Formats: sequence, C-alpha cells, structure tokens
Amino acid sequence: MKFRFVITSPLFLLSCLVSGPSLAQSSDGAPTTQRAVTDEEAIRAVLASYNAALNGGQTAAVLPLYTPDGIFMAPYSPSFIGQTAIRKAYDAVFAELKFGVRFDIAEVVQMAPAWAFVRTNSAGTTLHHSTGKTTAEANQELFIFRKGDDGLWRIARYSFSPTKPPRL
Amino acid sequence: MKFRFVITSPLFLLSCLVSGPSLAQSSDGAPTTQRAVTDEEAIRAVLASYNAALNGGQTAAVLPLYTPDGIFMAPYSPSFIGQTAIRKAYDAVFAELKFGVRFDIAEVVQMAPAWAFVRTNSAGTTLHHSTGKTTAEANQELFIFRKGDDGLWRIARYSFSPTKPPRL
Repeated sequence: MKFRFVITSPLFLLSCLVSGPSLAQSSDGAPTTQRAVTDEEAIRAVLASYNAALNGGQTAAVLPLYTPDGIFMAPYSPSFIGQTAIRKAYDAVFAELKFGVRFDIAEVVQMAPAWAFVRTNSAGTTLHHSTGKTTAEANQELFIFRKGDDGLWRIARYSFSPTKPPRL
Repeated sequence: MKFRFVITSPLFLLSCLVSGPSLAQSSDGAPTTQRAVTDEEAIRAVLASYNAALNGGQTAAVLPLYTPDGIFMAPYSPSFIGQTAIRKAYDAVFAELKFGVRFDIAEVVQMAPAWAFVRTNSAGTTLHHSTGKTTAEANQELFIFRKGDDGLWRIARYSFSPTKPPRL
C-alpha cells in the first residue's frame, strides 16, 4: 500500500511534466487537473502571467490581471488608480522599455478567502528604445491580490521599488 | 429626545478636542473612551504613531510599530526582513535624514479580522545632515497591517516609492 498511484503511460508522465499551464484559473470551475487548483497555485499562475505580460510588452495582456479598481504604484509617478490610468501607465512604459525580467516569489500569504499578498524580487534587463541601451533591473514588489466573485484572483494593489540606487 | 447628549462642562469639550491620543490602542483592553476603539481607528492611530516616530527620528519609537517578522521595503536597498534588519535600516536613515513629512491616508481596507492594508501619500521636507541641505519629499506607501494575539495592530509589510523622478 506504499505506492497507491502508478504512472500508467509515458503520455501521463508527459502531461505531468508540462502541467504548469493547467494550473491556470478556470473561470467555469471545470477541473483542469486530477485535483482542484489551490488558491496559492492560482495566485502564482496570475503572477506568472503578469511576468510574461510584462516581458511581452502588451498592455492588453496586463490589464485583465488587475481588478477593475486596481492601483499600480510605480516609482517616480503618482499612483495609477483604476483600469484607465493603469492602461496609460503600461502603454507609456512599453513604448519606451522592453523587459527581460524574472519575478521570484519570496512569499504568498493568504489573509482571507478572497485576499492574499505576494512579495517578490525581480531582476533582469531592460532595453530602452529611445537610446538603444540595455540596463540591469532589480526590484522588490508587494502585491495585494483579490479574489473576484467569478473565483478569479487579480492584482488589487501593486507597489514596487528598485533595490539599487539610481545611476546619477 | 433629539439631543440625548449634552456638553456638561468646558473640560469635557476640551477632552473631546484633544481626544486623538485616547484612540491609541490599549494593551490591557481597558476602555479609553466612552465607546470601543474600532479596528480602523486603531490602525489609523498606529499610522499616526509611525508618522510621529519618523519625524522624531527615533528608531526605538519605530520598532514596536512593526511585527516581529515585519518587512520594510524601502527604495534603493534590498528588503529589510525582521526587527534586527529594520533597526539597522532606520538607524542608518535617521543618522543622515531629519524628516518633516505628513502621511495622508488614501484608504484603510480591513481584509480579515487580523489583516488590513493602508495606502497613503506622504509629503514634506527632509534635512540631509551630511550636506545641511533640505529637500522636498513626496512618496506613495502601501502598508499591510497584522493584528497580534494581544489585540494590537502592527505593520507587517511596508513598501513605498517616491512619486517624483530622482534629481540627476
């Protein structure tokens, strides 16, 4: 009785190895794996989607990850409050910068059934279109996630700052 | 029956006018006013204490406002994790800077009985001891508060960033 589960086929093994995307949230609640996706897994999947959207440079891929009343607190600008302001912020960022960064999750803390926070560190490179130069990036991030009535986790508040002094 | 409460003496009126501090948390649970202090009032009082401690430049006044495992995410440095790291961070800050800033609360959101977040904007002046110069400050802040088993609210996570570009 030590091993109750056995791998029955190479295909099943393959499906396990590439099961990352199947942990994404399912809006209709349909099971995407043999077990339910936990809140933490769903939150980590949203963060992975955010990381990919940032590197992809597509505002349209970023916006659905925020709540309708989401707030984006980026350095050197007043807080961007709500989807319209957030859209303008990312449009401006992506017009100038092309990111190649990676977010590493330091902690995921679920505070309530519909609230969680995530602390991350990110690092990588940034290509500046106006100068053609690529610089190193390193930031620390604090996200507050909210679970909607549709069961989907989204970014409600997001504050970050660089971990290195600005180059003067 | 329209006016059930009347002001009986000038002393009572005075006590109402200066009642701010009486909203501070009471560790023994003793009533400090005629009604119970709400969680939001307690959180606002902690933030007022933090504002005063920052302007006072005393690390010893800042530390009790953080949880034992608190994390301070200040720009231009990796996150300060835990009381020992937080102590060093504020000691270094206060050795160089004398603040005259004011925090304005944009929102207080209680997410669970023991969790809340607060978003603020702060502005004011900073005297730099090494140069003798005073500069203008403007920041945006995101605090996550945790209520301890002792009933006291403390800062669990705190991320902020400047809202104006650095002077180059």
